[in-house]
Amino acid sequence: MSLSLQESDPEAALALAGLMRVCEPPSASLAVFVARVGPVAAWRAVLTRRAPRPVLAATAARTQNTTPEALTMRASDDLATAEKIGARLVRPGDSDWPAEAFGSFSIALARGVRGAGPPIGLYVRGRPLIGLPGNAVTIVGSRASSAYGQRVAGEMSHELAVRGMTVVSGAAFGIDTAAHRAALHAARATAKYRGDGGAVDDSATDDSAIDDTATDDSAGTRQVPATVAVLACGIDRAYPEANRPMIDEIAVAGSVVSEYPPGTTPARHRFLVRNRLIAAFGAATVVIEAGRRSGTLSTAAAAEQLGRLVMAVPGPVTSAMSVGCHLLLADRFAQLVTGADDVLAALRPAMAAGPGLLAAVPGADPLHPTDGLDLDSARVYDSLPARGWVSLDQVVLESGLLARQVMSALAVLEIHGLAGKEGAAWRRLTPADHA
Amino acid sequence: MSLSLQESDPEAALALAGLMRVCEPPSASLAVFVARVGPVAAWRAVLTRRAPRPVLAATAARTQNTTPEALTMRASDDLATAEKIGARLVRPGDSDWPAEAFGSFSIALARGVRGAGPPIGLYVRGRPLIGLPGNAVTIVGSRASSAYGQRVAGEMSHELAVRGMTVVSGAAFGIDTAAHRAALHAARATAKYRGDGGAVDDSATDDSAIDDTATDDSAGTRQVPATVAVLACGIDRAYPEANRPMIDEIAVAGSVVSEYPPGTTPARHRFLVRNRLIAAFGAATVVIEAGRRSGTLSTAAAAEQLGRLVMAVPGPVTSAMSVGCHLLLADRFAQLVTGADDVLAALRPAMAAGPGLLAAVPGADPLHPTDGLDLDSARVYDSLPARGWVSLDQVVLESGLLARQVMSALAVLEIHGLAGKEGAAWRRLTPADHA
Repeated sequence: MSLSLQESDPEAALALAGLMRVCEPPSASLAVFVARVGPVAAWRAVLTRRAPRPVLAATAARTQNTTPEALTMRASDDLATAEKIGARLVRPGDSDWPAEAFGSFSIALARGVRGAGPPIGLYVRGRPLIGLPGNAVTIVGSRASSAYGQRVAGEMSHELAVRGMTVVSGAAFGIDTAAHRAALHAARATAKYRGDGGAVDDSATDDSAIDDTATDDSAGTRQVPATVAVLACGIDRAYPEANRPMIDEIAVAGSVVSEYPPGTTPARHRFLVRNRLIAAFGAATVVIEAGRRSGTLSTAAAAEQLGRLVMAVPGPVTSAMSVGCHLLLADRFAQLVTGADDVLAALRPAMAAGPGLLAAVPGADPLHPTDGLDLDSARVYDSLPARGWVSLDQVVLESGLLARQVMSALAVLEIHGLAGKEGAAWRRLTPADHA
Repeated sequence: MSLSLQESDPEAALALAGLMRVCEPPSASLAVFVARVGPVAAWRAVLTRRAPRPVLAATAARTQNTTPEALTMRASDDLATAEKIGARLVRPGDSDWPAEAFGSFSIALARGVRGAGPPIGLYVRGRPLIGLPGNAVTIVGSRASSAYGQRVAGEMSHELAVRGMTVVSGAAFGIDTAAHRAALHAARATAKYRGDGGAVDDSATDDSAIDDTATDDSAGTRQVPATVAVLACGIDRAYPEANRPMIDEIAVAGSVVSEYPPGTTPARHRFLVRNRLIAAFGAATVVIEAGRRSGTLSTAAAAEQLGRLVMAVPGPVTSAMSVGCHLLLADRFAQLVTGADDVLAALRPAMAAGPGLLAAVPGADPLHPTDGLDLDSARVYDSLPARGWVSLDQVVLESGLLARQVMSALAVLEIHGLAGKEGAAWRRLTPADHA
């Protein structure tokens, strides 16, 4: 059995489901808090109103006028709903938690990018989220795509899937649908070629399937999701409704993902929030078609903020659907690509730079440890002695910041590996501590 | 009468016609030689075989096995042929010699760009070549253009011409034709709007017309050529023959230009040579459509070498005719433009940088006077004393170069304004000498 104890820990799952229920993503403060104390303690702190002030602020609306018991019951219902539709709750530390996809969030966060919080958990249907972002390309574009855009999206996606890449998109009409469908088609063709007739592999959630992933050399064509659909609504819903059959098909040959609790309705703001995950899951984000004010451009912006490669496909200058792509290209915000070959060629240097692509992120290898951090965090870092342990009070005194500012700065430093805690004492960490 | 004495100097015209007859362009050495001693002395030196060795080499094939008298007679015939078809020979120093368009050649030459020689004279039909390159945009593209490319070329050219810009191209089928025709159409519409019914203005070659240009505020819509066609054959020929009516029309509302003596046949190598002039005449070169190995890409390369802006229009990635454009854009060799607005917006900073666009040329404003020069020229410059005059022998001694190397380096320094000559003595020139 490949699952860690944590993965089978029902208390942690319940706590995380509760936290996801009471906090609208993204919440960097909740993510940092959960990373620090774990979901069980975090959930308890939220229920007893003893969490850090930003966490309480982020969870206040959905925890007031109700009881801890009712909230926990609701979380239990969420897990039951998920299980009923074949979804599981994946959480940080699980073997199929796409940690590499989220590494850039803390960097973006430290740079002050708004809304750059990582998810605190993910409901997943279908295959485990492995190979993200290194083995994945995000393909996005307009819902009101042209025949040209759909053709290009389909050809690119098919070609990438045939070569074992995962195609990430948002299950919307237009370009998203063309990309998902072509990847599914490629997966079916590959499965047929392999002689298993494209049989439904819905065993991905059981232990043996996960074991396969770890040991089967040919896993690239089998267990890696052919395509990943990231929803802006609950995992139990389909949006647009007309795409439900496709989404169900993705939940077999690929993965359907949501950071929202079951039942969540798709709302405008959730599409923008969801787009950061779409961007995070791919090594590159390719914009196929986009109007001048397309929401697709927010995915491109998120990809750039996360240090991912941004690519765009040109089209006729006479087409309104290519205006957004041409703006990205004219500003040299995006690299021009004409097909899968171009995408893979442009990715090669980033892939060679190593896992997580972080080496390709400007400023990810700072000259000074606090480069890119917010001012408070840098100040608190400088207040920590070069060696030896200090109490929180000492740091407050040394930094001249308020206790809560110091605490939140220390949390940031901790997730960056710049500060370590033992009991109530803190100390500065250096690269030597990580060696 | 606005013409300088030089312009009416028949001896100089005959000499230049002779030099153009005996030397296949481009010849940087002949251009430098003519710039130094003038066409009359240069012609005499060629005829008497006392010109610098590179000049003799460049003119040998067409001066041997014939007599000076026959050569001069042939030059006279060329001038007569030109006159008969309404063309005139324009030469360096003439008021309508497009000196600013050629300023970059000496820089490209000094950088060692092969084939970067300026023309030594130009046969011109139609309007004087004013406003080049500052007021002109070069539009080029595939002969086998698509309906899409022709539409984009036509719209861009029309829009630029309406705004008083000159559209430069090569009179070929496809994109060139679409660009020329749209500019002509815009010129006719403008003339009609101005109430002169688009009347043929073939007075551009007489003195009063040139006076107009200098004094008429509205000259932008009247005397500036609407479009310039640069031929790869003699000014008396049309290539492709089917475009003769269009070329004749350009010779009225615009200008037809050739650096070849009358009667020269279009040959493959001449198209490549001609392309450098097409690039030089525009502040920017816009590639509308180009196949993967299109000759159009040589015009883009020439534009880049001359410090001009290179732009490209994207198209469907499914079109073979856009592959060349996409290569230029993917390599960031060209700026993406979708129409005249984009072209003008991209040009604005370069135009603001002043006449000749040289301020926009990287390295054109060197920190050290010899930055960008070839090694020999830099060495000779350093061999000149900071003050005082020296003989050629002294420079040879000081530089350790051969006399002919020193001479040719001094010629380069002279055209860059870095060395001055008085009799047989040379001295270093500084910016103060030009103030």
